[in-house]
Amino acid sequence: MKSAVKTKPAIAFVGTGRMGANMARRLHDRGYPVTAVYDTYRAAALALAEELHCVAATSLAEVTAAADIIFTVVTDDAAMRRIFLARGTHLLTRAHGKLFINCATVTPAVHVAVERAARRAHAAAIEACMASSITQAREGTLYLMLGGQPASIKRALPVLRELSASLRVIGPAGRAAEIKALVNMVMNANTAALAEGLGLAAALGHDLNLVREVFSQTGANSRVLQTDGEDMQRRDHACFFSADHAAKDSAIALSLAKSKELRLPLAAATLAQYHRLVALHLGHLDKSAIAELTFPGRSGVGRKRRPR
Amino acid sequence: MKSAVKTKPAIAFVGTGRMGANMARRLHDRGYPVTAVYDTYRAAALALAEELHCVAATSLAEVTAAADIIFTVVTDDAAMRRIFLARGTHLLTRAHGKLFINCATVTPAVHVAVERAARRAHAAAIEACMASSITQAREGTLYLMLGGQPASIKRALPVLRELSASLRVIGPAGRAAEIKALVNMVMNANTAALAEGLGLAAALGHDLNLVREVFSQTGANSRVLQTDGEDMQRRDHACFFSADHAAKDSAIALSLAKSKELRLPLAAATLAQYHRLVALHLGHLDKSAIAELTFPGRSGVGRKRRPR
Repeated sequence: MKSAVKTKPAIAFVGTGRMGANMARRLHDRGYPVTAVYDTYRAAALALAEELHCVAATSLAEVTAAADIIFTVVTDDAAMRRIFLARGTHLLTRAHGKLFINCATVTPAVHVAVERAARRAHAAAIEACMASSITQAREGTLYLMLGGQPASIKRALPVLRELSASLRVIGPAGRAAEIKALVNMVMNANTAALAEGLGLAAALGHDLNLVREVFSQTGANSRVLQTDGEDMQRRDHACFFSADHAAKDSAIALSLAKSKELRLPLAAATLAQYHRLVALHLGHLDKSAIAELTFPGRSGVGRKRRPR
Repeated sequence: MKSAVKTKPAIAFVGTGRMGANMARRLHDRGYPVTAVYDTYRAAALALAEELHCVAATSLAEVTAAADIIFTVVTDDAAMRRIFLARGTHLLTRAHGKLFINCATVTPAVHVAVERAARRAHAAAIEACMASSITQAREGTLYLMLGGQPASIKRALPVLRELSASLRVIGPAGRAAEIKALVNMVMNANTAALAEGLGLAAALGHDLNLVREVFSQTGANSRVLQTDGEDMQRRDHACFFSADHAAKDSAIALSLAKSKELRLPLAAATLAQYHRLVALHLGHLDKSAIAELTFPGRSGVGRKRRPR
């Protein structure tokens, strides 16, 4: 069969944090040539380049030159603008025929602007928003939501299938990012609410193992109860999805709501809580750290912090 | 076997709303003599009495006299005080040896006061807090959390097992009610957050079937997504658990939080939303009606209400 011997496209990664690095490892395992990696934190790029026997590119234009498909897994709107829309050279420099797959959770309008700029550069860009975490990236079982032009999405599908257990094509550029923002807005609010429930249970002296068991059997059950409940109880806030990112994503959703003149008080209260956490210099912790604001005797209530 | 022919205790019900009536029907089906029912809304008591061939008692003392075990399924703190703690005759009048099983979601301190008053009347009272709804009551598959003295709980277990799929003994009087308040506080917040997510999705013009599917596969998943998501979308707010009750229960939890000097902004925002719904005269609708406040073009945003 002709397709069986078809050469796999060369892949590069911009952003070699844990998500990006795990996606690169996964594609490397699956036989894709990962030719270049890049990160503003160069030590991370160098380490991954050594592991995958590829180039740690020193410029964005070098990344683009090295690959057919370039994944970007960066932190926020500013980073997306820097790598795609800044003055001077960037990823769209000499990008003719290249495909960019953008995975960061950023403002939908930024995806729209990047997709348009890519087309002007005779390249293509799609958004592949990830509703899962580091482990799923490594195992190729991400839940991906895709936005962009149908032809570009079609071109991306083979490599995206290697990374995902589920793919949903949502619509044109920006539309998947909208749904991603909604997912994280609701997830963050459920997390904040869970932290309040467990915090009050602790204040009342209840057995939190029992409380979590009861929650899991009732209308209080949620995905975040399963992923974050025990961590909140044990103060295990090793980061899978940071409070900083939670704040960013709730802010993106609230900005969409504002554009539609919708008032969303739960999302606003959630964002305020995550902002408090960031102000306490705890933004690098996992989103479960929001429980630090709601458990008695923890930092958020202004009392002396003590181990529990 | 001697126990096989042991006479089942006579049962009475105070509060013949849909929960109480379905519990009575279930015990009747299971061969318990349901001897009396009572409701301040006498028409409901008369209808159920006719259905179950029992007495529609005209006084609380008559209820107590008619049964060994009296279930109370009333609406709120005031109702509990009226039937147990008011001046004059009430359920504890000539209550020697009777067992009261109190199922309403009320302030934990009310359960404590009722339990103490029952003991003074040489009776017993426990709380059996229900974390499920009308259908489960009819089918005998409630999730019950029990609080009270161990001997009283032990005496209640055979009849409670007929009503439940799961029983959890939480602790002394008031403790099960605390956990029940926590469950409903978290459930209500998750409901309010879901209404915001779906409302914003609708405002952005997304396919809500797809959005609910994505939520269900991601960190946004929750029990209320399964129970209330489609109802929010379709504006089907036929009441299983009313917005009035949601407001009451979040208020109970917030009052517990206040007593512990805990600040719970999500719970507070949720209560404010349910209060808005009550102020709009929509408190009789299901808790899913909170979506009326967050979807574009529905009543809550001050625009003219129109069918969607």
